[in-house]
Amino acid sequence: MAHKRGYTYEELEVGMAHETVHTVTDADIQAFAAVSGDHNPLHTDEEFAKTTLFGRRIAHGALTASYISAILGNDLPGPGAIFTHLNMRFRRPVYVGTQVTVRVEVAEKVDRGNRVTMKVACLVDGKPVISGEAGVVAPSAETGR
Amino acid sequence: MAHKRGYTYEELEVGMAHETVHTVTDADIQAFAAVSGDHNPLHTDEEFAKTTLFGRRIAHGALTASYISAILGNDLPGPGAIFTHLNMRFRRPVYVGTQVTVRVEVAEKVDRGNRVTMKVACLVDGKPVISGEAGVVAPSAETGR
Repeated sequence: MAHKRGYTYEELEVGMAHETVHTVTDADIQAFAAVSGDHNPLHTDEEFAKTTLFGRRIAHGALTASYISAILGNDLPGPGAIFTHLNMRFRRPVYVGTQVTVRVEVAEKVDRGNRVTMKVACLVDGKPVISGEAGVVAPSAETGR
Repeated sequence: MAHKRGYTYEELEVGMAHETVHTVTDADIQAFAAVSGDHNPLHTDEEFAKTTLFGRRIAHGALTASYISAILGNDLPGPGAIFTHLNMRFRRPVYVGTQVTVRVEVAEKVDRGNRVTMKVACLVDGKPVISGEAGVVAPSAETGR
């Protein structure tokens, strides 16, 4: 099967960015609960969620964060990149049905080891719900993938 | 629907820990690819994976990390806790079919804001594949959830 190739280390430039938009549905939350095993009723039970400070169900933070991993794996750098670290703050809740804009931007390149630091963020109505930093090793043009 | 209640801030003590064991199956990887949108062929295509330095398919780092979120949401502190940050390093690959032990331990309590820092790790054969730190706000016995 043929795959889109990702960016090599040499092709990446500070400031390059990629964005995706996701609407977090109830089906996404149920699927994420099943695959992760995280059945916290704050995410899955409307009656329970009403008793919390949020007042209604919110998405798992790790579900929203997985959209960051998707950009790294699909788009920037894309296939061939190796994920080395992720530091993130969960700043605001993401309610069911909310549209989330996910953004990854090349922040720094370290030639030794082809390491790239990415600024990452998930935004709702222009405000960050997740913000942080990810590290990847990008494939080299010389060694290919 | 009745739910197991989580630990309150007051009940948590430094050193308390919870472990789970997961075997990462092909079905888990396909389900995670679908819900996250991360279709990196390193995870989903054996032929592509053979051309990478890993030599075979590995689990999404964010899938393994989601098991950490599951402990925080289900067990320690459990329902009612609010996830505030997660810093993690992806140290080794997790191959399809591997058994992963996931461990969360209370590392520090900060009374102001009922903040708890957790040491988190995912281990394969006793070696860390993910290591890091998570932050949560635990519910207070006084205010309940």
